[in-house]
Amino acid sequence: MLDHFCKKPLWECTRTLAAVAQGHQSADVVIKGAHLVNVCTAEIQEDVDVAISEGRVAYIGQADHCVGPDTEVIDAAGSYIAPGFLDGHIHVESSMMGAGEYARAVIPHGTAGIYWDPHEICNVLGLEGVQVMMEDAARTPLKAIVTTPSCVPAVPGFEDTGSFVGPEEIAESMTWDGVVGLGEMMNFPGVLAGTDHAHGELAETLKANKVITGHYSIPETDRGLNAYIASGVRCCHESTRAEDALAKMRLGQYAQLRYGSAWHDLPELAHAITDHDIDTRFANLISDDTHPHTLVEDGHLDHVLRVAVQCGIPVIQAIQMMTINVATCFHMDDDLGSITPGKCADIVFLDGLDTLNVTRMMIDGTVVAEGGKPLFDYECFAFPDWVTHSMHVGQPITPASFVVKAPEGTTDGTVDVRTIQIIPGKVGTFEGHATLPVRNGEVLGDPSQDILKTFVFERHHETGTFGVGFTQGFGIKRGAMASTVAHDAHNLLVVGTNDEDMALAANTLIECGGGMVVVADGKVLGLVELPIAGLMDDLGAEEMSEKVHALERTWADIGCTMPSPFMTMALIPLACLPELRLTNRGLVDCTTFEFVSLFV
Amino acid sequence: MLDHFCKKPLWECTRTLAAVAQGHQSADVVIKGAHLVNVCTAEIQEDVDVAISEGRVAYIGQADHCVGPDTEVIDAAGSYIAPGFLDGHIHVESSMMGAGEYARAVIPHGTAGIYWDPHEICNVLGLEGVQVMMEDAARTPLKAIVTTPSCVPAVPGFEDTGSFVGPEEIAESMTWDGVVGLGEMMNFPGVLAGTDHAHGELAETLKANKVITGHYSIPETDRGLNAYIASGVRCCHESTRAEDALAKMRLGQYAQLRYGSAWHDLPELAHAITDHDIDTRFANLISDDTHPHTLVEDGHLDHVLRVAVQCGIPVIQAIQMMTINVATCFHMDDDLGSITPGKCADIVFLDGLDTLNVTRMMIDGTVVAEGGKPLFDYECFAFPDWVTHSMHVGQPITPASFVVKAPEGTTDGTVDVRTIQIIPGKVGTFEGHATLPVRNGEVLGDPSQDILKTFVFERHHETGTFGVGFTQGFGIKRGAMASTVAHDAHNLLVVGTNDEDMALAANTLIECGGGMVVVADGKVLGLVELPIAGLMDDLGAEEMSEKVHALERTWADIGCTMPSPFMTMALIPLACLPELRLTNRGLVDCTTFEFVSLFV
Repeated sequence: MLDHFCKKPLWECTRTLAAVAQGHQSADVVIKGAHLVNVCTAEIQEDVDVAISEGRVAYIGQADHCVGPDTEVIDAAGSYIAPGFLDGHIHVESSMMGAGEYARAVIPHGTAGIYWDPHEICNVLGLEGVQVMMEDAARTPLKAIVTTPSCVPAVPGFEDTGSFVGPEEIAESMTWDGVVGLGEMMNFPGVLAGTDHAHGELAETLKANKVITGHYSIPETDRGLNAYIASGVRCCHESTRAEDALAKMRLGQYAQLRYGSAWHDLPELAHAITDHDIDTRFANLISDDTHPHTLVEDGHLDHVLRVAVQCGIPVIQAIQMMTINVATCFHMDDDLGSITPGKCADIVFLDGLDTLNVTRMMIDGTVVAEGGKPLFDYECFAFPDWVTHSMHVGQPITPASFVVKAPEGTTDGTVDVRTIQIIPGKVGTFEGHATLPVRNGEVLGDPSQDILKTFVFERHHETGTFGVGFTQGFGIKRGAMASTVAHDAHNLLVVGTNDEDMALAANTLIECGGGMVVVADGKVLGLVELPIAGLMDDLGAEEMSEKVHALERTWADIGCTMPSPFMTMALIPLACLPELRLTNRGLVDCTTFEFVSLFV
Repeated sequence: MLDHFCKKPLWECTRTLAAVAQGHQSADVVIKGAHLVNVCTAEIQEDVDVAISEGRVAYIGQADHCVGPDTEVIDAAGSYIAPGFLDGHIHVESSMMGAGEYARAVIPHGTAGIYWDPHEICNVLGLEGVQVMMEDAARTPLKAIVTTPSCVPAVPGFEDTGSFVGPEEIAESMTWDGVVGLGEMMNFPGVLAGTDHAHGELAETLKANKVITGHYSIPETDRGLNAYIASGVRCCHESTRAEDALAKMRLGQYAQLRYGSAWHDLPELAHAITDHDIDTRFANLISDDTHPHTLVEDGHLDHVLRVAVQCGIPVIQAIQMMTINVATCFHMDDDLGSITPGKCADIVFLDGLDTLNVTRMMIDGTVVAEGGKPLFDYECFAFPDWVTHSMHVGQPITPASFVVKAPEGTTDGTVDVRTIQIIPGKVGTFEGHATLPVRNGEVLGDPSQDILKTFVFERHHETGTFGVGFTQGFGIKRGAMASTVAHDAHNLLVVGTNDEDMALAANTLIECGGGMVVVADGKVLGLVELPIAGLMDDLGAEEMSEKVHALERTWADIGCTMPSPFMTMALIPLACLPELRLTNRGLVDCTTFEFVSLFV
């Protein structure tokens, strides 16, 4: 129960709701004659009216007695109505849109609420940045429910971020309106090892009687998983095998089955449901990361729902997994997750249970989207200057910045280096070894081996630190790319075939406040400006989707044929994933968590 | 999450649990080779070990790695283990035992926790009395979880109780450790009418983010029920028809299916489950009132479970209804209701899923009962004097106290009076009319018509008030009965054939601090002393059961052949039930809620 996400807390409207239910007072809205998807009993009820007052459901049945002269009556004959969808784990920043535009993009797809871990902006701008995003989100009808980022930085000691979160910050944030739990505890090694940092964060969350959300990404279902769940982690969205999801549910953890833009785990995970005759109350359906093109082309949770049904999950169970099961996971089922008396009138109208298209969306009793379009709009959020000017690189970047010095004594010839071998469409990398040419004491990249110079410049506190490496596998023949979307520290990442283009790419982003850029032959070919923390822009989903598509075409121009190469590139610094990664502090062996030399 | 009912709050033991799960530290206890009733997925898992530390589950799987030299290993081969049973609605006082002895009686039957509405003692001794009972209960392993009585008095303005509870008292009690919600909101007419008292209490509970428990006892599933649920009432144990229970579940209210000593609703209510293909997560199984003879002869929730299965409810679902569904109803599923990592190690050992006999009971990792016997004991609780001396009648009681004056002008002859017609085995009464003899200006009872004088004396604050009526239907030929168990005000109720025996009965109870008594011909035939608030004694269940049986035999001696006549008698003053009732203020028509004259 959290009044922050309701039009009014229930205790202020029990009298009114009771009066409306009995016909002593008129409802604000009456929905007439719908098929009700009852997520409590898992039934479809026919010809149901819903009377609404104060933004909440007052009555379900035959509601003519609730209709007064000022009551808005919505004819829902032929429609199915379901509780507003709740996304149990999501990062708004992945959409590259601010929370306001994100809300406009997802609400027409049936999303009433999101449990949001804003760890991207937190890495850049700290909890103050999170608060700004919460302000933006609060202007919208979307219930943007926050879990405080737990792992900032993601891998302490191996990278420099804009901020730091520890048990004290967690304790403070647990007092904020709108925070209901701890964001994904990626530091499961810390949980298993019993570190003060990890268990301190867990403890502060539990003391506040809030929910710990998880991230147990390894295919292990025995001692480690038990230890992790015993530490109080209530849900986890990182299963990739059906047996992992099943084990989590059996151990009383909510298994959040993911179908995001990039991570299509659901078809595999659905087998946990379809191959076993189990109670599915511990299953959620979630999106995690949704990119703008997915929102525009496929939708949001409505799309996940359709995929779930295609995978064989019965439709009512699938709807439970994005409504009541999610609300129960977060102990918020008193307000959210079902169309029952007293609950927020968050209602999805669907054209049918086969097609599952959202025709209308109501939140807190107000119709906020129809025919796929949001019915609300507002001025762009006035982001403060420190949010839109987050590029603080400690040194001027010139072509000379990209010189890679060979080991002492090697002036000309070759040298053996470690390379980050990317794997298209996967989050992991391999560590490779390659022989590169040395000229005048400088190690060169080698496009003939598809090996590119790669730099990560700290960009938050002008420390001047940077890491140097080589990446193999993008297929780039000329030019360079840069991005400030570079997980999780979101430093300035530059990859390229020549030092001049790399400098241009870096400086282009420094000037525009961050984003993603492709340059070649001294020219900017494509640029997505992301001035909000270097991660987002305040554009609508369609415009953002078009800009990203345009940028992707310029990648192809310089020789890369991978789908969404920027996403793969953005993971080069993510030191919590195997095997070899590059942060602003250097090359990290992410299987042993040790810095390693560039040279073999 | 409420640390009060765990050995340690989870945040103090996450490190230890994680270490034990991984075998880095030894478990306190390991249960080996059980069949696990998994209430999360509704499956039976075979050959499961459970490792326990700090009173909580650390690991589930094959737990040899958790066994150290000091680990207690319990061989559970052949046993089924299920989560400790939770009774979602119960009044300890109905057992006539203090909370300590109650715990000793129910724990061997698999009960780990009760959601307890102590409204009997609260009517007598107020919230201070509740606190004393909580202290007694806290000495036991039983998780005696309190919902604060909401309706004290039950029907304001029609009776005098020892205490008063309103919104302010509710707000205060919500800050107490051990209080998780509001006790059964019997005043559903007040909820429907929108009274300040009722909605004030609801509001204070909701503001504290606690659970409102319900009592919607009329067979109505439309406007009134919707209004009641919309007011935030999360569960209700008062359904008597399957369609009522089904309607409640469909409207998102937990339907608590009752099978108590006196109220055998479950066989009817089970049809809500067995006749419909529904998700049963909103069903609970509860006992409400359990008398000592039931505890001794049949058991507690284990008995309810066996009845549920006999009624056709699948056994795993039935177990869910007294474990995870209850914990979820009260938002306590982080700590209770399942055998999963991190949860309290409250574990029932069953000999089989057909027999469902409890062979061993563990609470917080300690075996607390075996073979039907509790393994814990302690000194009698030192109840303070004001608890054990609660008889405060305002006048000396003599035979003259029982004179019923005829209407002015009627010295001899007859007069027409209203009678309370009891209905054996039902909670209701009828209003009857009868013609009674008048002698010397006094109206006499008439055993030939089975009509007895009935008096209710206020006994809490020496107000000297009393109500006078006539009761029909007990079959008594001689003597008198008295009781201080007289719902819900628990004033001194006296019913009899002659004034001398009535005075003796009343004075016997005044002298012993309350209880139940049968007298005839100037002699006490049977007496159950209940010195704790006039409601309970600190005896074990077997002894109490024997005393009550002995008393019942004396009822038969004076002519009454009803089963458990004291229970029926105790409802004579209960002014929230139809039709005619007698309180210390007079006769009440409980269909119109008006005082009525004794004389027609």
